[in-house]
Amino acid sequence: MMMEKVLLIECPDSKGLIAQITNICYKHQLNIVRNTEYVDPETGQFYMRTELEGLFNEATLLLDLDRALPAGSQRQLVDSRRRKKIVIMVTKEAHCLGDILMKVYDGSLQLEIQAVIGNHPDLGSLAAKFDIPFHCISHEGVDRAAHEQLLAAQIAMYQPDYLVLAKFMRVLTHDFVRLYPQRIINIHHSFLPAFIGANPYHQAFSRGVKIIGATAHFVTDDLDEGPIIKQMVTNVDHNYRAQDMVKAGRDVEKNVLSKALQLVLEDRVFVHGNKTVIL
Amino acid sequence: MMMEKVLLIECPDSKGLIAQITNICYKHQLNIVRNTEYVDPETGQFYMRTELEGLFNEATLLLDLDRALPAGSQRQLVDSRRRKKIVIMVTKEAHCLGDILMKVYDGSLQLEIQAVIGNHPDLGSLAAKFDIPFHCISHEGVDRAAHEQLLAAQIAMYQPDYLVLAKFMRVLTHDFVRLYPQRIINIHHSFLPAFIGANPYHQAFSRGVKIIGATAHFVTDDLDEGPIIKQMVTNVDHNYRAQDMVKAGRDVEKNVLSKALQLVLEDRVFVHGNKTVIL
Amino acid sequence: MMMEKVLLIECPDSKGLIAQITNICYKHQLNIVRNTEYVDPETGQFYMRTELEGLFNEATLLLDLDRALPAGSQRQLVDSRRRKKIVIMVTKEAHCLGDILMKVYDGSLQLEIQAVIGNHPDLGSLAAKFDIPFHCISHEGVDRAAHEQLLAAQIAMYQPDYLVLAKFMRVLTHDFVRLYPQRIINIHHSFLPAFIGANPYHQAFSRGVKIIGATAHFVTDDLDEGPIIKQMVTNVDHNYRAQDMVKAGRDVEKNVLSKALQLVLEDRVFVHGNKTVIL
Amino acid sequence: MMMEKVLLIECPDSKGLIAQITNICYKHQLNIVRNTEYVDPETGQFYMRTELEGLFNEATLLLDLDRALPAGSQRQLVDSRRRKKIVIMVTKEAHCLGDILMKVYDGSLQLEIQAVIGNHPDLGSLAAKFDIPFHCISHEGVDRAAHEQLLAAQIAMYQPDYLVLAKFMRVLTHDFVRLYPQRIINIHHSFLPAFIGANPYHQAFSRGVKIIGATAHFVTDDLDEGPIIKQMVTNVDHNYRAQDMVKAGRDVEKNVLSKALQLVLEDRVFVHGNKTVIL
Repeated sequence: MMMEKVLLIECPDSKGLIAQITNICYKHQLNIVRNTEYVDPETGQFYMRTELEGLFNEATLLLDLDRALPAGSQRQLVDSRRRKKIVIMVTKEAHCLGDILMKVYDGSLQLEIQAVIGNHPDLGSLAAKFDIPFHCISHEGVDRAAHEQLLAAQIAMYQPDYLVLAKFMRVLTHDFVRLYPQRIINIHHSFLPAFIGANPYHQAFSRGVKIIGATAHFVTDDLDEGPIIKQMVTNVDHNYRAQDMVKAGRDVEKNVLSKALQLVLEDRVFVHGNKTVIL
Repeated sequence: MMMEKVLLIECPDSKGLIAQITNICYKHQLNIVRNTEYVDPETGQFYMRTELEGLFNEATLLLDLDRALPAGSQRQLVDSRRRKKIVIMVTKEAHCLGDILMKVYDGSLQLEIQAVIGNHPDLGSLAAKFDIPFHCISHEGVDRAAHEQLLAAQIAMYQPDYLVLAKFMRVLTHDFVRLYPQRIINIHHSFLPAFIGANPYHQAFSRGVKIIGATAHFVTDDLDEGPIIKQMVTNVDHNYRAQDMVKAGRDVEKNVLSKALQLVLEDRVFVHGNKTVIL
Repeated sequence: MMMEKVLLIECPDSKGLIAQITNICYKHQLNIVRNTEYVDPETGQFYMRTELEGLFNEATLLLDLDRALPAGSQRQLVDSRRRKKIVIMVTKEAHCLGDILMKVYDGSLQLEIQAVIGNHPDLGSLAAKFDIPFHCISHEGVDRAAHEQLLAAQIAMYQPDYLVLAKFMRVLTHDFVRLYPQRIINIHHSFLPAFIGANPYHQAFSRGVKIIGATAHFVTDDLDEGPIIKQMVTNVDHNYRAQDMVKAGRDVEKNVLSKALQLVLEDRVFVHGNKTVIL
Repeated sequence: MMMEKVLLIECPDSKGLIAQITNICYKHQLNIVRNTEYVDPETGQFYMRTELEGLFNEATLLLDLDRALPAGSQRQLVDSRRRKKIVIMVTKEAHCLGDILMKVYDGSLQLEIQAVIGNHPDLGSLAAKFDIPFHCISHEGVDRAAHEQLLAAQIAMYQPDYLVLAKFMRVLTHDFVRLYPQRIINIHHSFLPAFIGANPYHQAFSRGVKIIGATAHFVTDDLDEGPIIKQMVTNVDHNYRAQDMVKAGRDVEKNVLSKALQLVLEDRVFVHGNKTVIL
């Protein structure tokens, strides 16, 4: 049966690599629908994303690739029709969660929302409108480590592909983050690296900037320092008070988060140190 | 001696095409620096642009490619360090010509301006500042056919790679255009296909649009209907009178024209019917 | 009790107009929070929007204004805290309706959705999630006039301030449109005036444009010719098939529609012939 | 004789201020062509910019205003047809200087370039093309204070309205900056406050941002902290090396600088603490 799969390869560059890989695809009688590569000029790391069409003998294809690819290679064959599963973490603000819920509802985002977890109960009724399980796991009365264990235990019930922090306003520790390497996506409400930390819109207002933005990035140990997936901006002027910037920022935040999710669910995003390569 | 060249291929798609081409490159011990392909899903036409590095035996490389590629293929090996030569045609407005002159001067555009041809003398002094030959070939007192013959005769002295219409305000006939197939680049002062024809800013003003734009495109027989290379826009509001739109449009025009030139001189633009594929 | 109101004035320009109007406000001990004017240079029509704060004696204020303003003036005093009431008309596509529902839900749009009317039943369940009445008024089995009478009868039950066509895919006749002069807001899925009429994304795809857009406008008798409130665009390239343009366009459509609604509900939009003045 | 002037007022807000000012204009039989005000909600500072048309009795008009305005007011009446005079300071990079030269040449920027001062001789030939005096005042072999005295002495010969730092790569001390309060305009090659300091494009490259920008601002004692006039951005991706970001940034830099100059020369920019109000 004809299938569509995406082949993802990351390895040290070497001469003839594309020829070897595409030869294997050809030998397997697979059609290359779209193909993109990138070699980082500084590190010589090679990245390739290939959309393939045909009858897949997955085991032998991967075996053939493993024989051909240099040591230290990572390769993955992804069924492009399988919907990625996500758990969304929130606090009180509805706009990012609401946008994802609506885009999944209307088919714009092809993913499965398994659950929404909030450290406040506020957004439970919004999740309920779309029949998504909501778990309120309050951080009150427990220490940070215990709270994160409760979160992790709940997330473990779902085994999501990605955790999406849709305005989850708690800093996550190293112990939590390392459970989901390159699998936590956050929306930061500033045009990073400007206005790192708390209250970026108030910082932006005080500085008198004429543009504000938002940044979707993978979460690493360093707060606001993870690999950036997508950034978007919008113009502001002297008429914007801090609360007007917050409001204008909402649209940017939800747009940039859903565009980042779109890139991730199409398997376009490679992490390369503290950067992303988007093929 | 190590060289950098760009291999450009256009042909009907067939299975194994990328493998065949990259095998040949590998056999020639050429390193693939960057590679992009596109297959048009409607026509099955295949496009590939490959930046290669190494010692080129150009004749045998092209021979090997010709043997491998299907009938109806076009292939080209371009020395990426050779500067493209252009002749610029103008009327009276300075901003597009000035921008190209300045970008060539400061190294932003790596091309050679052979000459400027105007149907009015106005811009001769601007070309002179940059020591570029200027030819005034007036359309007055001659019929259209005769005028175009004078233009073509002058252009023939230079054998340019491309003709750039930098606000050349004369419609060119089929007889002229067919002399330079896919080699005439025009800037149209509207966001095509809106406001085709004369006085687009006045049309835009009358319609009360909130965004205006400009379009760089290859010139074909159909006025304003050639393959679009690049489009850009800018916001306007009710405060803009027609002349303010003209002024705001100038910046867009020159920016879009120089970005289109940049794409063309990097050999990124394929023409595919009345569209472009930009790799 | 301290109130905030917006004074809207439209009249033929005359010397001293601003002085007269602001004198009256001062005499009434009202504070001018924000003030914007515009005089159309072609027609000499004067537009003024003034945010006032204070204790309003509305009757005498309007009387004073009527005495001062020239013949043919229109003036209005709007309570800026009163939420505008809208009825939304839809067909089958969820994204624009969903975005408005969500923005009203999360407080981004301060308006009251009285009802959703669809000519298909598809979006009833979406409206129901947010407890908004949904009326399916099918156009099947009735002629156009009869259908519009049914629509008008239903709308009359709500007396909305504005009708919002959120991807309502029926052309409305003069007889319907004249019932709601300057009060029907439509989202057109192209960057008007490019691609007027049906299937704009397919037209855009065929033309090979590099930017697509959407236009929010007031509905007049001339299809797609009403005064433009807001336009936005997004970049596309040769990789976008027509359906990808449709998808990319969805985000633009919903963003431009909700920005237009925001302008309208803040009483910023004046209609001036077939244009808008946005103060 | 009919004139056009711009009245600029800055003062503490008080009730009836607009009425008083516009009354005086009316009494002087001046027509208000365009009028914009802003009151800062935090400080209560009032800003007003009024385009006036008519026969000006400037002395009595200003006297009338001085009587009416509260203590601590600043008011200015500017002849909108008088071209502002600027001295441009540069180092080695041509693109910003070139853009200003060309825009003045083609009439896009209505100002008078009195001279170009470089701390290197490189751009002398570019200035010469446009017949602008060029002074090379090297910083070599003199200490910073002595160098700035040489600069100031040269500038004093011209009495410019504004100093424009068009990629002048020297930090200016307090002693120099205080000579031209709110009259030095700088282009910073980053989207401030991101990447303050040296080599912002290399910082941006290392951080893996997806958008870069540039900022035009008034120069104050604090490096890169002065009031922002204009910011613009452009998208980048993983294919951009640091030098590609530099190149992409050039277009943004020159565009944002010339847009800031346009705002300044139209007398639209008020400085309000470390921010600007643009009317």
